[in-house]
Amino acid sequence: MYSAVNTIWVLLGAALVFLMQAGFAMCEAGFTRAKNTGNILMKNLMDFCIGTPTYWILGFGLMFAGSGAIIGGFDPFVRGDYAAILPEGVPLFAYLIFQTVFCATSATIVSGSMAERTKFISYCIYSFCISAFIYPISGHWIWGGGWLAQMGFHDFAGSTAVHMVGGVCACIGAAILGPRIGKYDKDGKPRAILGHNLSLGALGVFILWFCWFGFNGASTVSMTGDDTMVSAGLIFVNTNMAAAVASCVTMIYTWLRYKKPDVGMTLNAALAGLVAITAGCDAVSVTGAAVIGIAAGLLLPISVNFFDSVLKIDDPVGAISVHGVCGAMGTILTGLFSTSEGLFYGFGPHFLLIQCLGVLSTAVWAAVMITIVFLILKHTIGLRVSSEEELKGLDITEHSLPSAYGGFAFVYDDTPADLAVPAGGVPVQEAVPVELVTPVEAPAAVSSDGVKMTKIEILCKMERFDALKRAMFDIGITGMTAINVMGCGEQRGKTEGYFRGARVEATMLPSIQVSIVVCKLPVSLVVNTAKKVLYTGHYGDGKIFVYNVENVIKVRTGEQGYDALQDDVI
Amino acid sequence: MYSAVNTIWVLLGAALVFLMQAGFAMCEAGFTRAKNTGNILMKNLMDFCIGTPTYWILGFGLMFAGSGAIIGGFDPFVRGDYAAILPEGVPLFAYLIFQTVFCATSATIVSGSMAERTKFISYCIYSFCISAFIYPISGHWIWGGGWLAQMGFHDFAGSTAVHMVGGVCACIGAAILGPRIGKYDKDGKPRAILGHNLSLGALGVFILWFCWFGFNGASTVSMTGDDTMVSAGLIFVNTNMAAAVASCVTMIYTWLRYKKPDVGMTLNAALAGLVAITAGCDAVSVTGAAVIGIAAGLLLPISVNFFDSVLKIDDPVGAISVHGVCGAMGTILTGLFSTSEGLFYGFGPHFLLIQCLGVLSTAVWAAVMITIVFLILKHTIGLRVSSEEELKGLDITEHSLPSAYGGFAFVYDDTPADLAVPAGGVPVQEAVPVELVTPVEAPAAVSSDGVKMTKIEILCKMERFDALKRAMFDIGITGMTAINVMGCGEQRGKTEGYFRGARVEATMLPSIQVSIVVCKLPVSLVVNTAKKVLYTGHYGDGKIFVYNVENVIKVRTGEQGYDALQDDVI
Amino acid sequence: MYSAVNTIWVLLGAALVFLMQAGFAMCEAGFTRAKNTGNILMKNLMDFCIGTPTYWILGFGLMFAGSGAIIGGFDPFVRGDYAAILPEGVPLFAYLIFQTVFCATSATIVSGSMAERTKFISYCIYSFCISAFIYPISGHWIWGGGWLAQMGFHDFAGSTAVHMVGGVCACIGAAILGPRIGKYDKDGKPRAILGHNLSLGALGVFILWFCWFGFNGASTVSMTGDDTMVSAGLIFVNTNMAAAVASCVTMIYTWLRYKKPDVGMTLNAALAGLVAITAGCDAVSVTGAAVIGIAAGLLLPISVNFFDSVLKIDDPVGAISVHGVCGAMGTILTGLFSTSEGLFYGFGPHFLLIQCLGVLSTAVWAAVMITIVFLILKHTIGLRVSSEEELKGLDITEHSLPSAYGGFAFVYDDTPADLAVPAGGVPVQEAVPVELVTPVEAPAAVSSDGVKMTKIEILCKMERFDALKRAMFDIGITGMTAINVMGCGEQRGKTEGYFRGARVEATMLPSIQVSIVVCKLPVSLVVNTAKKVLYTGHYGDGKIFVYNVENVIKVRTGEQGYDALQDDVI
Repeated sequence: MYSAVNTIWVLLGAALVFLMQAGFAMCEAGFTRAKNTGNILMKNLMDFCIGTPTYWILGFGLMFAGSGAIIGGFDPFVRGDYAAILPEGVPLFAYLIFQTVFCATSATIVSGSMAERTKFISYCIYSFCISAFIYPISGHWIWGGGWLAQMGFHDFAGSTAVHMVGGVCACIGAAILGPRIGKYDKDGKPRAILGHNLSLGALGVFILWFCWFGFNGASTVSMTGDDTMVSAGLIFVNTNMAAAVASCVTMIYTWLRYKKPDVGMTLNAALAGLVAITAGCDAVSVTGAAVIGIAAGLLLPISVNFFDSVLKIDDPVGAISVHGVCGAMGTILTGLFSTSEGLFYGFGPHFLLIQCLGVLSTAVWAAVMITIVFLILKHTIGLRVSSEEELKGLDITEHSLPSAYGGFAFVYDDTPADLAVPAGGVPVQEAVPVELVTPVEAPAAVSSDGVKMTKIEILCKMERFDALKRAMFDIGITGMTAINVMGCGEQRGKTEGYFRGARVEATMLPSIQVSIVVCKLPVSLVVNTAKKVLYTGHYGDGKIFVYNVENVIKVRTGEQGYDALQDDVI
Repeated sequence: MYSAVNTIWVLLGAALVFLMQAGFAMCEAGFTRAKNTGNILMKNLMDFCIGTPTYWILGFGLMFAGSGAIIGGFDPFVRGDYAAILPEGVPLFAYLIFQTVFCATSATIVSGSMAERTKFISYCIYSFCISAFIYPISGHWIWGGGWLAQMGFHDFAGSTAVHMVGGVCACIGAAILGPRIGKYDKDGKPRAILGHNLSLGALGVFILWFCWFGFNGASTVSMTGDDTMVSAGLIFVNTNMAAAVASCVTMIYTWLRYKKPDVGMTLNAALAGLVAITAGCDAVSVTGAAVIGIAAGLLLPISVNFFDSVLKIDDPVGAISVHGVCGAMGTILTGLFSTSEGLFYGFGPHFLLIQCLGVLSTAVWAAVMITIVFLILKHTIGLRVSSEEELKGLDITEHSLPSAYGGFAFVYDDTPADLAVPAGGVPVQEAVPVELVTPVEAPAAVSSDGVKMTKIEILCKMERFDALKRAMFDIGITGMTAINVMGCGEQRGKTEGYFRGARVEATMLPSIQVSIVVCKLPVSLVVNTAKKVLYTGHYGDGKIFVYNVENVIKVRTGEQGYDALQDDVI
Repeated sequence: MYSAVNTIWVLLGAALVFLMQAGFAMCEAGFTRAKNTGNILMKNLMDFCIGTPTYWILGFGLMFAGSGAIIGGFDPFVRGDYAAILPEGVPLFAYLIFQTVFCATSATIVSGSMAERTKFISYCIYSFCISAFIYPISGHWIWGGGWLAQMGFHDFAGSTAVHMVGGVCACIGAAILGPRIGKYDKDGKPRAILGHNLSLGALGVFILWFCWFGFNGASTVSMTGDDTMVSAGLIFVNTNMAAAVASCVTMIYTWLRYKKPDVGMTLNAALAGLVAITAGCDAVSVTGAAVIGIAAGLLLPISVNFFDSVLKIDDPVGAISVHGVCGAMGTILTGLFSTSEGLFYGFGPHFLLIQCLGVLSTAVWAAVMITIVFLILKHTIGLRVSSEEELKGLDITEHSLPSAYGGFAFVYDDTPADLAVPAGGVPVQEAVPVELVTPVEAPAAVSSDGVKMTKIEILCKMERFDALKRAMFDIGITGMTAINVMGCGEQRGKTEGYFRGARVEATMLPSIQVSIVVCKLPVSLVVNTAKKVLYTGHYGDGKIFVYNVENVIKVRTGEQGYDALQDDVI
């Protein structure tokens, strides 16, 4: 009754699609900052861990337990009879695991766009909602015998059902959350926030590409019959071709536009090509796949730029463009390039319109449902962490994890100086009671060349550095150096965090030490400005040290003393 | 005669189980410190490389060449006739590679618990012993037709045969070695030693989970017959469900207990769930798998804590709890949840007792044998590196590798200040000949506000920092800053280490620079204390620099000079 | 007509061989420096992305579209009839993707040996050439029914066809490029340049080993018939055995020769064993595989050393020795160890000579063609980046990527001090107009113990540090400390680079701060020497700060003041 080759094929596909979790985790972690890495890994683990029992209890039934137009059925714990929908020769549990890993993929996509600022508890909840009903219901329409399936909508392995659903949720989520602090300058111009580990990002892309052979290839859910085998070969070639061509096109695009081939965007483009070909990988020719790859490679950087610069939706990993936009596009292009139904092959616009309808209705469904979920979360437990938590990083604030990279030295957080107050964010700087800011008198000694030069060392918390830097520029300081130091105090018993259940002691406080050498500007001005910026009244506000400087020489001009301190930094 | 689908299934499984080596390597490396990473990678590579020929020469024969109750036979180079034990339709060599990768998994588990302090040569030897006879003989009892197999002991893919054997060896090894320096404070309370790369740790977990589909799934060693295919599907679902549920449970547990969901422990929990379901993945229902997952998710953090805080066995990666404890538990729970033999399904206690007996006897076997091996090693070539080697890190001392992360800056090693002398370890601090510690007179100049303030910069080796810090706290210093610098000397020809056979030159010495500003305390006290702590009489003992400070301001209180130097660090 | 098991086997193999791209990328990135990581990831992505359409348009036809002795045919877009050459039961597209990933492997090998100094545009072009005709034509000789195939040359999965072709191209490329700056000292002795991430390197090796089960195993391109299944099992065992044994042998070799087991070389050895067994994995016994592994394990470190020290070809990852030398050796050893044709099995020298001829002719073909390609590139757009670009790193200069590891702190670049001018490289130090170097007078104040001690802090760009260090040693400075700082200037609008299409702002300039305390040597000498070395007349030449020091104490000797400043660094 069952077919060994079909079962092997489906189970192999399931294992590969599971591994996409590793790919997404590495991509998202790599393209974001180190202070949030533990949180990101946790999210990528937990969406799968929450999704697995959820889909078993609710999702699978909603998607497959019945052939209604809108909804499958309610079959907790998958106890029903699925003979009608099971692929030929595939046991139920093999199909269940295969569908489970697809569902989890959809949920995990959202994580990247909302990275670095989402509350973990809210993440767990909306991730549950996606696996419980958002994905399964539109999935039923498309794959479970629902109304779109009945109309002939073709989404072979899930450009729409999986990726676009994830991408739409990601878009709504990122829009409601607002951008990360520092993502936009005061003129609203976007700034890059560098990822902390492009090696992991690239590894993630390679892993995803590898797994996509399972995602698309095993979606035949069969290896029986010549047609199926020919189709499987074609799917492999098409999947690979679209990804490769998309990468080439994006590379050339960025090379022309930004003068240099962009690494991060090109890595993204491979995924864009994979997403785009997913709907029609069985239906288009290799040439069609290449053209879809070209389209994805062109659309991706434009779309990323559009969301970043025009809509100002901050999407740290580009998931909206990769999964949402290219997923929709790939599904629609299948309406043009399908060799058996496509417009370009003379089959008229009917199929194309169905493809458009499917994309649109699924997008609306996902958008409406997830908006409800996010708004409820926002107005109950909250969707976004506080500004202070965001600046400190989610590892320590959400997980008590001092660092995902214990032992490594970091430079200051790269959040730019003029902090754009995020949508819905609270102001970072608390008001300073002026009476506490006593002016400091500068010592009047004079250096050897007749000009008193003074070095002011300011020791403060890393998250206050950017405000300090801005204030210093404002009073006329033209340059400074910054360096990370560890502040060691005596309070050795205090627990800073936990790592695998054991206390991490707060003996060392990562701090930043800013050095400014002044000559013309009074020392008191610098000191008082620093005090004003750094003061909160809590422990850890920092200290300021004042030293005498004997001389300063600027190498480029040979100037000494006063003159050497004008203009450039080093 | 042979079956293509069975052979494909077994070979695919073998490849996946091989990849577990990557998963274990990334996990172990990620959860430990960067100074030992090269050593850890080498160990994870070499246990497999040593195990492969060893199992071919000795292990496979001991395990499968005969049906004795206790031992298989002696068949070096696998030349015998194994028709009696080969799975149907699977060629001998396909089965050999499949069994080889399982054996290597058992050996590699031990590595993590003994990480960061084991001599590499001893590691190679005991790893050889595990592959040569410890694993094969108990493996014969369970899978080779030995006495446990004959009694009906059920360990489908090796919760006991592979994981618990590894876990028991890990436990004995970690106990004999003693904890890492700094793991316990002087009151015996455990401290966290942060892993250096949680991204790699998480990647390892995802890879292991992926490979577990081969580990458990392919342990059907067949894809022929409807029952087998149904079973394979169930195994996939159960394996996935137990891991997912265990992660959820542990996450909630740590959330409740430590106020925040713990990343490292939750990653561990996924593995605990996988280990626990391995024995009964073919025999329990999906609900049973979920319950086993719940049990693993609860037991894991309790067990980790128990070994860490009560038994005080230092297990850097939690392998004892994950593989040993959850392996045993999963095997025993199969006696309850097996739908065909389990107590909870009305089949009486007989099967449960056999499961308990199997666990117990295998644990005793592994414990006794590995204890003999470790004690012989300890009293001949030694099992543990010296304290000095441990503090410096095993990369440079065991492999002449200056760093596994060339170019990255590191903060001081996080070994806490009051170094617990490890069991069997030598005292770190050598005696100081007092006549060499000449007192230093402090300069008497006075700063602008009438109080002389002085900055003392101490440059020393990183591994001496913690002793210095402790001594400074003891004389009343309340705060200091520390920073990593590179000390550059002229001795450019000296070879520091090797990297792929080429010399690494010792031009740069990673050092730590500690800055202390004093006012009330005499400079001479600080200087002389530092000298006493740092003195060994060898090159590299360090230097102390003294500077004048014009002023100090504490931001929080606005205090200046003397007052600003009391209490808090920054 | 088609066989499900054959098709599954070939497609599974294709997916696994694709994943080798991840393995190669991680290996190459891990064994080189962080400043070039983005470039390396991009190269490893793009050779596959360029190779995929290229092989579809040109390569596959040249390799398989016809049975000529020298060349297949011209069949753009693979539209011909390949029934004659297709493996039994495997659809054309399944075979196309299988061959595509093999082709890409050959191209990607070259990348590692030419890492850290090759122009990206030239990389894209020569990578195209390898996929377009160099690999396909010799591939046709061996696998496409060409003259070597007709003579009975046996290269089962491509020791010669894939790996040696890649290795030969790598060798020629590295030789034409010349060594990286700093690889050889002025006496021509090689220096180690540490890899930045051995964890990634090891992960790459594990991934490659895993994928090799597809590379060799799936090269049966069939799973039909008992012989094939037995063969597949044997191939798995042999592949694994050769890799394991080679690692053991190299570990022991380095242990004996360098006193410690070398991590990097042993990781390389696993790959050497895999490459060596690839030609004869189906034809030799397990014992034969072990002997081939021993040979590879011995030859590898000797070959790496030979290229490094004797030929002075700088191969950052050892690809020449691993793929070129061990590929050739493995092919030739098949002539000795083949159980059906080998000399050692009594079949005479005929087959051995054919193996030698195949290796030789393929090597000559690859060498000649790639030399032409490289020379054309060198004399047109150039093959190597400028010295300045190389010192800065290819990430920022070739891709506008400020760092692949945003947020991490780095120590100075480890390029040694006496920069060997690379073959064809331009001198790094520009001439200094002497009139700009005005002498600086040192202040004459005197410290408390009667000796004036002065601290000179020099702030400069990281890439100038080594020249500065050398100059300081030359004037008699015996020690200094160096530390990374961030220089922050006011020029906030300036764009430093791009990350995924968004501007990276140049607010922070990573700089190095060198501290020298002098007593005997005049301050003016140090300052003027620094000015001379650092001066270029451009912004960012640096600044020099002069401070008074009150005292210095050397811990080892207890010396103070002047005496404490002689000799050792810390």
